[in-house]
Amino acid sequence: MIIIGEKINGFIPKTLEAINARNAEYIKEIAVGQSEGGASYIDICAGVAPEIEKETMIWLIDIVLAAVDTPLCLDSSDPQMLVDMWNYVQEKASGRQKDEGMINSVSMEEGKCEVIFPVIAGATGWNVVALTCNNDGIPDDPPTKLVIANEMVALAATFGITADRLFIDPLVTTLATKGDSLSNFITGIALIKADNPTVHFTSGLSNISFGMPHRKVINTQFLCLAMAGGMDSAIMDPLSKDMLATMFATDALLGNDDYCMEYLSAYREGLFG
Amino acid sequence: MIIIGEKINGFIPKTLEAINARNAEYIKEIAVGQSEGGASYIDICAGVAPEIEKETMIWLIDIVLAAVDTPLCLDSSDPQMLVDMWNYVQEKASGRQKDEGMINSVSMEEGKCEVIFPVIAGATGWNVVALTCNNDGIPDDPPTKLVIANEMVALAATFGITADRLFIDPLVTTLATKGDSLSNFITGIALIKADNPTVHFTSGLSNISFGMPHRKVINTQFLCLAMAGGMDSAIMDPLSKDMLATMFATDALLGNDDYCMEYLSAYREGLFG
Repeated sequence: MIIIGEKINGFIPKTLEAINARNAEYIKEIAVGQSEGGASYIDICAGVAPEIEKETMIWLIDIVLAAVDTPLCLDSSDPQMLVDMWNYVQEKASGRQKDEGMINSVSMEEGKCEVIFPVIAGATGWNVVALTCNNDGIPDDPPTKLVIANEMVALAATFGITADRLFIDPLVTTLATKGDSLSNFITGIALIKADNPTVHFTSGLSNISFGMPHRKVINTQFLCLAMAGGMDSAIMDPLSKDMLATMFATDALLGNDDYCMEYLSAYREGLFG
Repeated sequence: MIIIGEKINGFIPKTLEAINARNAEYIKEIAVGQSEGGASYIDICAGVAPEIEKETMIWLIDIVLAAVDTPLCLDSSDPQMLVDMWNYVQEKASGRQKDEGMINSVSMEEGKCEVIFPVIAGATGWNVVALTCNNDGIPDDPPTKLVIANEMVALAATFGITADRLFIDPLVTTLATKGDSLSNFITGIALIKADNPTVHFTSGLSNISFGMPHRKVINTQFLCLAMAGGMDSAIMDPLSKDMLATMFATDALLGNDDYCMEYLSAYREGLFG
């Protein structure tokens, strides 16, 4: 499982508080914690008003670059912001953090892929989260998700971006309002994987439990069932022992962890339990 | 999900202690608790030396019959003991507890089915746990599990016992020693279900995590993945909030719980969370 650590995000109240107070110590602490928790990428999303997004992103990026050597996942709904921040990282970072990373996200909404793909085309260590939505919105049905995913894979190919650099997010719906959320999500993965065997699949886990009590268990069981359905990445909190325990246990049960070595080693390191 | 409450079992140290001390209050308490936790059957297993198994079973049965109206699951490795206890229940119980129940268990080990099936044949409310093992032991491979399951279904039919009264347990192996435990279990279910669409599937959940640390998470994720694979019953602890939360969340995610009503109602009743 490829973990994208989700905690440095201004849409999370506690993180926003730290951003507003310019509490660098807290940001550093959750960067280091997520890195130690096994994050392959540290997501950075300002979650603030557009006027101050750029300065906020830069403030966050500087802290994370100094705190860890884990690659970044640059996260904004504004594709030009993503390009600016990618350029900033190229200028300021070195080593893995310059050469590897994730852009979060593109979709078939007009102008997103067209702005991002040319920029990262030659930076082969940089991957991109690709959402199955377009100008018509977020489709519910797996066949439309497939159409959009195929369009993004084809468009990426025209820039020389191979399919394995795309982390497709089939955008799970909220379980409370849609009883077939999981089945739609997993069928979406199956259809897209059949056409594009090398793409990765990721998801923000917590959308599914919106509006429900005791969300934690919905999120962990969604993680488990989505992994069984072929999801190989998640935008999640690697500081959550419940999440990590679920992830390691599921990987062991799915036969992806010989002799449970990863599970046992994570347990011994105190990542869960 | 059909829950068989596992706690009244002398192989559980705390229960054995209560049995040895003839602590009826404790047995009553876990009978009531499991019943309130949603158990459809209360398993009763003495787990003591053969010389005192009968008197112990009777002592336990008397307590449970008086404490709840949930049907019993009579549990012994000795088929004659199961027959004796079934007769005892027929004599002492009334209502659902007389007319409904579970025998735990038969297998294709010589003499088991032959002793049990004729006794429960006419008692159509009584079901039976049927283990996929025989005189050669417990097979690892799904095709052999299928052969044994089919033999038991066919043998049951000769006594007029319909397949839907069989709760097949494909006997999951220990994950620490067999990385394909889950896949074997689920493939076993798929093969058996294809031939026998009306049988139920059950399992003692905790075998899979034997020898592992933090067993709870292996057990909950096994429950989740086995439910996704078609298991519709479990021999489990309905007093465990983690187990119940996992069960209700998984059922909702699998689309078996319209508008999450069962999940929400269980949460409101305090069964988890």
